[in-house]
Amino acid sequence: MVILVLRLGHRIGRDKRISTHCGLVSRAFGAKGMFYSGEKDKVLEKSIKSVVREWGGPFEIKHVKNWRKFIQGFKGRKTHLTMYGLPVQKKMPEIRKTKELLIIIGGEKVPGDVYQLADFNISVTPQPHSEVAALALFLHEYMKGKELSKKFQKARRRIVPQERGKKVIQI
Amino acid sequence: MVILVLRLGHRIGRDKRISTHCGLVSRAFGAKGMFYSGEKDKVLEKSIKSVVREWGGPFEIKHVKNWRKFIQGFKGRKTHLTMYGLPVQKKMPEIRKTKELLIIIGGEKVPGDVYQLADFNISVTPQPHSEVAALALFLHEYMKGKELSKKFQKARRRIVPQERGKKVIQI
Repeated sequence: MVILVLRLGHRIGRDKRISTHCGLVSRAFGAKGMFYSGEKDKVLEKSIKSVVREWGGPFEIKHVKNWRKFIQGFKGRKTHLTMYGLPVQKKMPEIRKTKELLIIIGGEKVPGDVYQLADFNISVTPQPHSEVAALALFLHEYMKGKELSKKFQKARRRIVPQERGKKVIQI
Repeated sequence: MVILVLRLGHRIGRDKRISTHCGLVSRAFGAKGMFYSGEKDKVLEKSIKSVVREWGGPFEIKHVKNWRKFIQGFKGRKTHLTMYGLPVQKKMPEIRKTKELLIIIGGEKVPGDVYQLADFNISVTPQPHSEVAALALFLHEYMKGKELSKKFQKARRRIVPQERGKKVIQI
């Protein structure tokens, strides 16, 4: 199973934290990497890489110059998350058959041809909310909740769940 | 059933978009309102209120001066979302018995006594990711997925799901 995320139209000033959250959610919920188009952002890449170094992987983050070519060149199925698409709860059984998946998430304005380039246009509720939340929910449904206890390789730290307070083990 | 969200330590410069996403996720996934502490932010409130006006409610957003008093005064159970807590998938059956719920989500640094004030400290994976994603996942599990087709009152627009493209009805 290979799941990749493509984040479209990153802008350093405005999207720094949202794109970071998208990258961290991609990793935590079982994707193998996040690619992003728009402005190349060394700070974004550095912060994701430092989380991978501390908390484990594998996970990669890479800038993509030509996102159309990237989508067209992807061998598996492509799912675009959009509030205008078909409900995730209806389409997931079909999408889940695909073991090589690219999940496309937009920025502020998504070019119209993304809807054509994607195999699926999928909504996580038809309400305005957040690409971070949509991505997490989609991955959670795709993984059937197994991502919640996913183990990461080469982690330097690990949390020991507590009823109160914090316990972190250095490995 | 009443679910409220409390967002701690909002800072206008840094958290504007993340707190907006938290507010939108709260509404879309079935909470009745988001309260927030830290800096009072008229732009944040305005943007949430404009979504409620267009896409329906009920949903409210309010600034809270004394968040400790607010938590202590809340009649129902309080769940603090933190990567250090007990796994959501283990504790949800117990939490779901509560029909009056306050979900507390932190900013960058959460004061230590939040762990004591909360009835539950719950993790959505023990990995670093996003309060937006944690909130969405938690509400999704609490609602058993019913929030995905939630209807909103007094909406001025509604999306008609499409395989490709966008269709919005003005009501």
